[in-house]
Amino acid sequence: MTVNNVKEIEDLIKIVSKLPGLGPKSAKRIVLILINNREELIKPLTNTLAQVYKNVVRCKICGNLKSTNSNCVCSSKKYDQICVVENIADMWVIQSSGIYKGHYHILGGTLPALEDKKGNGLLFSSLINRVKENSVKEVILATSATIEGQTTAHYIQDLLKDCKVKISKLAQGLPVGGEIEFLDDGTLFSAFKNRGPVVSD
Amino acid sequence: MTVNNVKEIEDLIKIVSKLPGLGPKSAKRIVLILINNREELIKPLTNTLAQVYKNVVRCKICGNLKSTNSNCVCSSKKYDQICVVENIADMWVIQSSGIYKGHYHILGGTLPALEDKKGNGLLFSSLINRVKENSVKEVILATSATIEGQTTAHYIQDLLKDCKVKISKLAQGLPVGGEIEFLDDGTLFSAFKNRGPVVSD
Repeated sequence: MTVNNVKEIEDLIKIVSKLPGLGPKSAKRIVLILINNREELIKPLTNTLAQVYKNVVRCKICGNLKSTNSNCVCSSKKYDQICVVENIADMWVIQSSGIYKGHYHILGGTLPALEDKKGNGLLFSSLINRVKENSVKEVILATSATIEGQTTAHYIQDLLKDCKVKISKLAQGLPVGGEIEFLDDGTLFSAFKNRGPVVSD
Repeated sequence: MTVNNVKEIEDLIKIVSKLPGLGPKSAKRIVLILINNREELIKPLTNTLAQVYKNVVRCKICGNLKSTNSNCVCSSKKYDQICVVENIADMWVIQSSGIYKGHYHILGGTLPALEDKKGNGLLFSSLINRVKENSVKEVILATSATIEGQTTAHYIQDLLKDCKVKISKLAQGLPVGGEIEFLDDGTLFSAFKNRGPVVSD
């Protein structure tokens, strides 16, 4: 990929093509657009990246991203609910669905399914502190329906058993639009196990 | 799209989603990867963008991008051929096909098809100079097969008519893999008009 023989451009294409979903072709296209829009794109992008690099840190309490210029949302006034997720991406998906507008706790990953429960770096103890300090009424476990996600959910259930807090978990069953014919055994099993009474309108 | 309430992150997502081929969803994904790889991605990306902003300029002679730290390829030793293209993206495609390894002249656009021939900012006069100064033997017109591209090609043919240089144009006809059934009239017309003798192997 030796285009142009201009080192700066080669370097930029190389870095941009490392970003998720971008290959060398789309990276080249993006770099061209950047170069053709120096003031409108390169300048603000450079500045914003520098700001993010300098100011954005992970909150050690709730695991969310925060600006060093302001307090984290978790330090605000009291709250009743905490939704526990594995990572920021999961939180963003739930946030943009608009289905839950409360507080989050971002673990930063999951426990390994088979090894001893360690979870180095996962924010378990601060979750217990948050639940206690805020007299939280409900903890919603929104970890993935993978073995690791469910192992982690079980572990948190154990940790919170003395906290007198309601612990709930996302329902498992048929995804909306899911056709029975193409479902895997695990999903089918959950859907049968969690079946509910038919409610007439 | 108010995720996270962190201004720096919102700003970054906004700029990244302006890049071609990226929507808000992929922009969020890219921003997350960036934040999770501060040293490996944000830092070098910021530096390289700053370098490109500072150093990369368009050569006023050949229209190619060049670094202010080094001479443009067009100022190097003499050359026999010049391939004329509309823009950098076109040049990159030809370069990466490997089919032509010579020098380029990037016009910076095309003439409008219907208005008077103006072409403000298009590098016509420097093309003539390059052809004369380097005693170029062949000018390959690789403008697009659009009305504007062909108008521009004709205009260049006119400009160069006193230069005693061979002027050639990319062939027009069936694209490789093109099925007759689905071809437009223009392409079919070109393919008939430019038909050649069958050569036995």
